[in-house]
Amino acid sequence: MDAFQLDARIGRDSTLIKRLGLCQLRLQDDSRWPWLVMVPERAGMSEIFELSSEDRALLNAEVAKVGAALKQVTGATKINIAAIGNIVRQLHVHVIARFEGDPNWPGPVWGFGQAVPYADAAEKTMFNDKLIEALS
Amino acid sequence: MDAFQLDARIGRDSTLIKRLGLCQLRLQDDSRWPWLVMVPERAGMSEIFELSSEDRALLNAEVAKVGAALKQVTGATKINIAAIGNIVRQLHVHVIARFEGDPNWPGPVWGFGQAVPYADAAEKTMFNDKLIEALS
Repeated sequence: MDAFQLDARIGRDSTLIKRLGLCQLRLQDDSRWPWLVMVPERAGMSEIFELSSEDRALLNAEVAKVGAALKQVTGATKINIAAIGNIVRQLHVHVIARFEGDPNWPGPVWGFGQAVPYADAAEKTMFNDKLIEALS
Repeated sequence: MDAFQLDARIGRDSTLIKRLGLCQLRLQDDSRWPWLVMVPERAGMSEIFELSSEDRALLNAEVAKVGAALKQVTGATKINIAAIGNIVRQLHVHVIARFEGDPNWPGPVWGFGQAVPYADAAEKTMFNDKLIEALS
């Protein structure tokens, strides 16, 4: 089996917050909405149902924990959780905090407009720290 | 605890294919793409992480099984799985078969254009039968 290697586009569009048991937890560089990307460190996976049942159970526990932490940290109206992968095929799960009145509410974030990178690295660090604390 | 009651909009936009252990498996009435909606029969839930861990495990197993069956029946390029719920708050999971060249490929289906109801009830029945067979 090939070793896991992060997809180049995911690597370019997001930064690592923390390694969980199975997933890399990453922050998408788009300040329009708090947008996390979770990537199971397993090679050759593109669909959730391709994972072993043990890995699926891990993924599901990690996604639930991250979703709850993101809700707690942001006070979001709704958490959006999705495995889409029409463009980047490496299995990844989006976990996004949505708010009434955000730039595309109540429509989806994918394919909407252009990413607005964080202007301030300190803002990212502060967010990541809060999230890590909520996860612990 | 209140009894589960299907959200009126989900009831209007989709039809029941089969009751699984936890979820109603439903077909969205939109012939542009094979679009399933899974609704855990639990009252008052809007986020996956609000479910008990037992129910989450059930949901995850059912979603994986349905996703694999949908892939098998349709030969889809990619299965899209998502819990969004910005409009309808009752917890529901979308499981959608996507194809290169479908009406909004590779963009998302949510918020795109207008649903095109199935013209032919027999087409729906045939699809549902194939899916139920793949699930068994």
